[in-house]
Amino acid sequence: MTTGPHAAGPARRTVLAAGGGLALGAAVTGGAVALTRDGDTAAPVADSGAAVPFHGAHQAGIATAVQDRLHFAAFDVTTDDREKLVRLLKEWTRAAERMAAGREVGDGAHGGLPEAPPDDTGEALGLKPSRLTLTLGFGPSLFDGRFGLKDRRPGALVDLPRFPGDNLDPARSGGDLCVQACADDPQVAVHAIRSLARIGFGTVSVRWSQLGFGKTSSTTPDAQTPRNLFGFKDGTRNVSGDDSAGLDKHVWVGAKDATGGGAWMAGGSYLVARRIRMNVETWDRTSLAEQEDVFGRDKKEGAAVGKAKEHDEPFLKALKPDSHVRLAHPDSNGGATLLRRGYSFTDGTDGLGRLDAGLFFLAYQRDVRSGFVPVQTALARSDALNEYIQHVGSAVFAVPPGVRDADDWWGRGLFS
Amino acid sequence: MTTGPHAAGPARRTVLAAGGGLALGAAVTGGAVALTRDGDTAAPVADSGAAVPFHGAHQAGIATAVQDRLHFAAFDVTTDDREKLVRLLKEWTRAAERMAAGREVGDGAHGGLPEAPPDDTGEALGLKPSRLTLTLGFGPSLFDGRFGLKDRRPGALVDLPRFPGDNLDPARSGGDLCVQACADDPQVAVHAIRSLARIGFGTVSVRWSQLGFGKTSSTTPDAQTPRNLFGFKDGTRNVSGDDSAGLDKHVWVGAKDATGGGAWMAGGSYLVARRIRMNVETWDRTSLAEQEDVFGRDKKEGAAVGKAKEHDEPFLKALKPDSHVRLAHPDSNGGATLLRRGYSFTDGTDGLGRLDAGLFFLAYQRDVRSGFVPVQTALARSDALNEYIQHVGSAVFAVPPGVRDADDWWGRGLFS
Repeated sequence: MTTGPHAAGPARRTVLAAGGGLALGAAVTGGAVALTRDGDTAAPVADSGAAVPFHGAHQAGIATAVQDRLHFAAFDVTTDDREKLVRLLKEWTRAAERMAAGREVGDGAHGGLPEAPPDDTGEALGLKPSRLTLTLGFGPSLFDGRFGLKDRRPGALVDLPRFPGDNLDPARSGGDLCVQACADDPQVAVHAIRSLARIGFGTVSVRWSQLGFGKTSSTTPDAQTPRNLFGFKDGTRNVSGDDSAGLDKHVWVGAKDATGGGAWMAGGSYLVARRIRMNVETWDRTSLAEQEDVFGRDKKEGAAVGKAKEHDEPFLKALKPDSHVRLAHPDSNGGATLLRRGYSFTDGTDGLGRLDAGLFFLAYQRDVRSGFVPVQTALARSDALNEYIQHVGSAVFAVPPGVRDADDWWGRGLFS
Repeated sequence: MTTGPHAAGPARRTVLAAGGGLALGAAVTGGAVALTRDGDTAAPVADSGAAVPFHGAHQAGIATAVQDRLHFAAFDVTTDDREKLVRLLKEWTRAAERMAAGREVGDGAHGGLPEAPPDDTGEALGLKPSRLTLTLGFGPSLFDGRFGLKDRRPGALVDLPRFPGDNLDPARSGGDLCVQACADDPQVAVHAIRSLARIGFGTVSVRWSQLGFGKTSSTTPDAQTPRNLFGFKDGTRNVSGDDSAGLDKHVWVGAKDATGGGAWMAGGSYLVARRIRMNVETWDRTSLAEQEDVFGRDKKEGAAVGKAKEHDEPFLKALKPDSHVRLAHPDSNGGATLLRRGYSFTDGTDGLGRLDAGLFFLAYQRDVRSGFVPVQTALARSDALNEYIQHVGSAVFAVPPGVRDADDWWGRGLFS
């Protein structure tokens, strides 16, 4: 793995109406980026101004070192015109390439029409690329027959079962498409989602969206795990973004998995998104001993019971059977391992004087059937944490492989 | 004015159960802070890890250089026991002192009861002070007679008139108390509001709250104004945090203003908060020329029509009569000048596929009657921007003077 210099990335162009003279490659190489030998985006880059390469074998925003902020949107496709959807995916790809490089959307010529709206909405002008990644996914409903994709639905893209305790709001669940925008500057992430929604006007509409203000996980091996809104480090044993073997085993869909109609998914991954409301007011009235029993970790260091350090491997039999760490551990779930990339959210108040706050859980995996489903089945049945949380939104998406170059586009394999 | 070294501030203590041995003064002086001669917090400090002094003649969070993130909460007092409310204000003051210095809430002894919940909720452990400021205000409804404060209501704390176009949601308006938490790390701001709500359990409950992800204004004289969600710099001509004369003239309540029952407000200020929904989808379909006409500025630089630079003084007669810059300018409103400290928000989707996004407008002034009321009267009547925005929440608060020292508390003047 080679790592570029940690120089500040280029500022977003501040020219509204100039032509598209700046070559994409130049904008990318001007930023501090890390590439693995096969061109994948690697994890341990934390220059918050830099650009993350958009092109690669896998989409960025999965193995990429977790950025500080999130704006996530699920879209419904509002047309049944397959060609229109394909055109949109091509347009989105080109816009995403530009935004990831810290450039404006469009070439500034706004179609040569002086009275046309500006190509770019403008609120990210002058801001750095901020490690923006845009990651696209296809939901199960996209394969319902409207677009001739019924036989292309991968077996691993299952509809999630109803788990005990689920209290899902349909208005915060599902979606034909999703885009995960992560960046170190929230204005850059918000601008990206809004720009894609704008480009999609008439073809897609936003079904739901979620802002995440703070990351709750780390995909870099040595970093401390950020604390969630219960004050705990959770998700310590994560797949590291520079662990190629771990990624191949647990995250990337291999050529052997992607067979038949689902062959287009080789190099992709599957994303489960869950909006988990955390009842912080109840939790905050619980003793430290009870809190630590629930997680199976100490609060200060984040070490499993009986261990000294956060990253010390837990001795599962020392943990209470209903503790979160024990139940979520791969050894309790036939090896099931997820790459977690969740964010804390706070969306005002719930009308009862309680903060509408929690965890927007995002997990990538090679197969949902051997990843999230067994883990959540165990947790939903027994987790001591269930007294303090509730799953209120849910979605699952097939995340296709990366866009290879400037001629490739999101979902080309699916629609070809 | 003397400016401290721009060293990184102390990390939040990571000890959950230790006694309160760390002196507050040491924690504060360990951070990079700027003090004016009379001990006020001054503006031009941008070390995002540092601590901002909590004590002073004025509350921090007004003249303080605008931090990156906001969590704002309005509270209803749920008791009519004046002594209970006073006890809460004292407790809040002590907790705010500690949090602003980057320390945990409470002394870690959690009342000497092993089974009591932890004093601190923990999610900000290990984070820097992040320039956290906590600014308290009293709403008009606090003076309704429940607490014997009827004759202490200042004349300048008026109920806002109904402005043309207002579409106010009562669930996002008003409040007996408010706390504005600003910090460069959103987790620190969210932790602070949640901690105050927790301390207030049984005495107050959160009426509404608002997260702001990006600042839209600057209180430092040379900085560029951040862009709002319409892509424009707005609020260029702001009161600078180090302009003592300007602050005395436009922001701080003088001894002469604070007379009779309102004498306790000397050194304080008045805050108007408005949740302004911005119809970004409509705006984004408008031509650049129309957008620039609406604001009276060019989009790229932010200069007023006919001028070259953002901070060039506009020639008002060159601007369209209904342009935002012209209508909001002090010369159009008898000199009315506000210190603006607003933030952009994005709160998901509105059910119609549109982002629920906009500006959470926060403005401080010496007197609401000569500040926000005339400005908004002119804007609500004529502003070309009204086609693209709607005011959906509103509140006004009397913000008392600063807490002088470790014996003083928020609102002592009001309740004495």
